[in-house]
Amino acid sequence: MDDAVTARWRTVRIAGGERIEREDDIAAEYPLTFRLDGEEFATIVCTPSDLEDLAVGFLASEGVIRTPDDLRSLDIDPQRGFVYAELRRKASFSQAYYGKRFIGSCCGKSRQFYFQSDVRTARTSVSRTRLAPAQCAALMEELQRRSAAFRQTGGVHNAALCTPEELLVVRADIGRHNALDKVYGSALRSRIPTADKIVAFSGRISSEVALKAAKIGVGLLLSKSAPTDLALKLADDLGITCVGFIRGGEMNVYTHAHRIV
Amino acid sequence: MDDAVTARWRTVRIAGGERIEREDDIAAEYPLTFRLDGEEFATIVCTPSDLEDLAVGFLASEGVIRTPDDLRSLDIDPQRGFVYAELRRKASFSQAYYGKRFIGSCCGKSRQFYFQSDVRTARTSVSRTRLAPAQCAALMEELQRRSAAFRQTGGVHNAALCTPEELLVVRADIGRHNALDKVYGSALRSRIPTADKIVAFSGRISSEVALKAAKIGVGLLLSKSAPTDLALKLADDLGITCVGFIRGGEMNVYTHAHRIV
Repeated sequence: MDDAVTARWRTVRIAGGERIEREDDIAAEYPLTFRLDGEEFATIVCTPSDLEDLAVGFLASEGVIRTPDDLRSLDIDPQRGFVYAELRRKASFSQAYYGKRFIGSCCGKSRQFYFQSDVRTARTSVSRTRLAPAQCAALMEELQRRSAAFRQTGGVHNAALCTPEELLVVRADIGRHNALDKVYGSALRSRIPTADKIVAFSGRISSEVALKAAKIGVGLLLSKSAPTDLALKLADDLGITCVGFIRGGEMNVYTHAHRIV
Repeated sequence: MDDAVTARWRTVRIAGGERIEREDDIAAEYPLTFRLDGEEFATIVCTPSDLEDLAVGFLASEGVIRTPDDLRSLDIDPQRGFVYAELRRKASFSQAYYGKRFIGSCCGKSRQFYFQSDVRTARTSVSRTRLAPAQCAALMEELQRRSAAFRQTGGVHNAALCTPEELLVVRADIGRHNALDKVYGSALRSRIPTADKIVAFSGRISSEVALKAAKIGVGLLLSKSAPTDLALKLADDLGITCVGFIRGGEMNVYTHAHRIV
């Protein structure tokens, strides 16, 4: 599907007082519906690339599976935009709780959670990984360099799973969550341990991005953009070092600054 | 709630080889759960401002109500993050279809729809409004100027309902859909006719943004960013003029270019 991440579109370009008709490259966007044991589960909109990674990462992130071994089968129909997943055991997941608000403060985890599924899937990090500021900057620069192919169409989010020295997995999507789910799915499918790794992300650190990092299981989250306060409260509670505004060697460390040395 | 759109956060700033502790302004992010006639309906994450506009716009956009008159009551608990809505008539909405994939091609509308609710709520525009390129540029510039207050925290989306000459309603949110829902809710609450108006938006034109414009009922959608191909297919089908990459007098007209004169 990688040749379908952009589409051609007939455009009227207005510049310098002139109108010129031309063909432009446009980011492709594609609805993908998950059917789980025969029942409709969710529909997301995504960039149609790395769909197996996206499917596994999305199901793990939503708490439906823990590893790809929990799947009896996974079939993707890219033409119609459907994922058909069958679970080995039904017991591990209750659709009644999907998308439902979490209310309560005595579970031992943060009161900032707002979805039931996040309480089960977001992990608290005890990562011993340390990064120098120069390593943070180098990882973000490498992410931007590797994302160049997508830059022409504008507005695609890029995410990477990294060691302190290099990017292991890089994925892109028009949806911020999808880029992270693709990284998560790829790591799960390749059985890459994540607890000592780092996530680098091109976009803003919202609460959902911080939660994805906790679900992936990393202890460090890097971004060139700004965070939200809810993301920082979650990162603080979940033991994640959050570094934002990484630009040319300068950066802000918002939480658990002891990992930036 | 307008004083809660930013929060203070203790940050370690790394620059020029030095570490400095300081307080930063961070965009506030806030979960808001809708309860509809006593049942949990949906949870969204938003900037905690203009919550009445957001509530009305979200419920209208999701097809739960058509106008604020369809609500028997609307109560917001900003402390706990809950909206309690009661409908005058239950018949107009079936929760069974909420978030469900639309499949079919013989309804007379586009085959690009992916949610059932969009088929009912997205309107085809026959707007006679026309804009000169200079007016497109002026509206986008004014949107950016009016959004300055939010710019310091980074990454907030801005949306406006406009006439060809001016911005009537401007709303901001960390969530792209929320900014548009706030504009929609404000227009509905103030009973501003929308069919002859324009929507200006700070972010990328995704399919969801194009659908929001169709739900609001406008015939023109302006952005300084890029569109996706699915957004353009929807705009094409729904009669909406889509103008992107509006930057310093230059722009791309992607659909229904006859309205840009």
